Amino acid sequence: MSYFNVTILGCGSATPTLRHNPAAQAVEYRNRLFLIDCGEGTQLQMRRFGLSYAKISDIFISHLHGDHFLGLPGLLSTMALHNVEGAVTIHIFPEGADILKRLMALFCHQTSFEIRYDIIRPGETRVLYEDGNIEISCFPLYHRVPCSGFLFREKPKSRHLRGDMAKFYNIPHWQIPAIKAGADFTTTDGTVIPNDRLTSDADPQMSYAYCSDTVADPRVAEAVHGVHTLYHEATYGDDSEHKAAPRGHSTARQAARIASQAGATRLVIGHYSKIYKDSEALAAEAREEFPETIAANEGMRIEM
Amino acid sequence: MSYFNVTILGCGSATPTLRHNPAAQAVEYRNRLFLIDCGEGTQLQMRRFGLSYAKISDIFISHLHGDHFLGLPGLLSTMALHNVEGAVTIHIFPEGADILKRLMALFCHQTSFEIRYDIIRPGETRVLYEDGNIEISCFPLYHRVPCSGFLFREKPKSRHLRGDMAKFYNIPHWQIPAIKAGADFTTTDGTVIPNDRLTSDADPQMSYAYCSDTVADPRVAEAVHGVHTLYHEATYGDDSEHKAAPRGHSTARQAARIASQAGATRLVIGHYSKIYKDSEALAAEAREEFPETIAANEGMRIEM
Repeated sequence: MSYFNVTILGCGSATPTLRHNPAAQAVEYRNRLFLIDCGEGTQLQMRRFGLSYAKISDIFISHLHGDHFLGLPGLLSTMALHNVEGAVTIHIFPEGADILKRLMALFCHQTSFEIRYDIIRPGETRVLYEDGNIEISCFPLYHRVPCSGFLFREKPKSRHLRGDMAKFYNIPHWQIPAIKAGADFTTTDGTVIPNDRLTSDADPQMSYAYCSDTVADPRVAEAVHGVHTLYHEATYGDDSEHKAAPRGHSTARQAARIASQAGATRLVIGHYSKIYKDSEALAAEAREEFPETIAANEGMRIEM
Repeated sequence: MSYFNVTILGCGSATPTLRHNPAAQAVEYRNRLFLIDCGEGTQLQMRRFGLSYAKISDIFISHLHGDHFLGLPGLLSTMALHNVEGAVTIHIFPEGADILKRLMALFCHQTSFEIRYDIIRPGETRVLYEDGNIEISCFPLYHRVPCSGFLFREKPKSRHLRGDMAKFYNIPHWQIPAIKAGADFTTTDGTVIPNDRLTSDADPQMSYAYCSDTVADPRVAEAVHGVHTLYHEATYGDDSEHKAAPRGHSTARQAARIASQAGATRLVIGHYSKIYKDSEALAAEAREEFPETIAANEGMRIEM
């Protein structure tokens, strides 16, 4: 399994159906688990797909509609019953933090772990999480209510030092970090060995963007420009295009155009309206604009 | 199908598992649907078992623990999306009404139906719903927080008038209601015909009691005395009896003793702790005290 992957926990829309759960995704990155959105039933979906509550470090809530939020109090309560330790940071709009605090005070007086709130302001673009390897930021989406997208982007990686060259030139240990970062090497007799003879290319910086819910908007394509894998909502198909924008949503074809504008490598569509029995038909429409499209389904694991 | 039946939507306890959902039951009585408790995922369970949101007239929330309440905002939001009409009355403790109002204001600004709140006070015994055929009342349970049980009891029914006798004595139409209620009939020549020659016994008054969550307490047996079908929580088995009372719960055997003390006809157990893989083993313990015990399971329909 890859060190960076996304599990789809729910890719339905407002009305849950027996086919699709409301919105939630788990992003696993190295030993951490980040949760994006938390519709009703998310805790059970995590259990179903073998994801550990104890690994959750951050929860990102895109907006305050029930199908993206209402599984959160139950999940946190269950984590408390399981005596999860450490801290969980919830990145959320102010009213969401308020109501969640009230719910927790009523239903779960004390938790074994600390709950930290990081308040996202509507319209904000900001880094929400950062460690040595990855940065997670929010950016605005364009829905009926304030809504945030989330972008997971690996930091630039070191080039690979070639073992044979390190030995041949007898490179001192202390110079290795600089060479991995791209520096040339000067031998004791003053010869400059260019970096590209000493190293091979760094692994690519992988990235993942979550865009749900939103109308198809070029500002979104710009915000996620160059992303590897784009998850973009596709509530409707061509047949209901007239409904999409007025309701703050996109069609599969529109999502594909955003992926194309963003220069993405791959598109994953989801957030299907309950009127669609077959998400593959939506993906087929998207592929006419952007061939590398897949249709999300509960339990699907997308490896970066 | 009977005109009075109960569908088990969830009979797990605080931690949902892949075997059992958190607490919820649908009581269908004639053309009405009453919901008791509403744990996370209840709306999906209703859909799974073919129960119509539109028929819900009243929702009874036993207590303010997440596993009995957290499916309610999502259910009401979905009902609004489905343009359910009329009114729904929510019978709930005061803090539950407060938080629900806040949740609805945030997640579902307007509903197509009216939401009425009927505030239950801790410790209260009172009729919550009544029509020509049935009466639903609350009574105290004994849990870690204030908790109500609910008793559904049919009103006394009319005796059946024998068609042959009505014809033979030429009973005038206007006297029939009184005879069905038990009156004798006096013929034109003054002969008194005793009621039991004119009528046969009324159908039995069916009743159903919901007792979850609670310790096994004789006051509960008293409150539901004579009930036909008793649903009583059985969080634990004999092996964990020491945990039951301190946590405000009962064992299957204790539930059976309450059924026996109450003179119930039938016991249904549920609210199983996640530690039990096999609810039949709990039912077997209960049957040693009260043979007419069945173990609830999701989707089970209990006909009265």
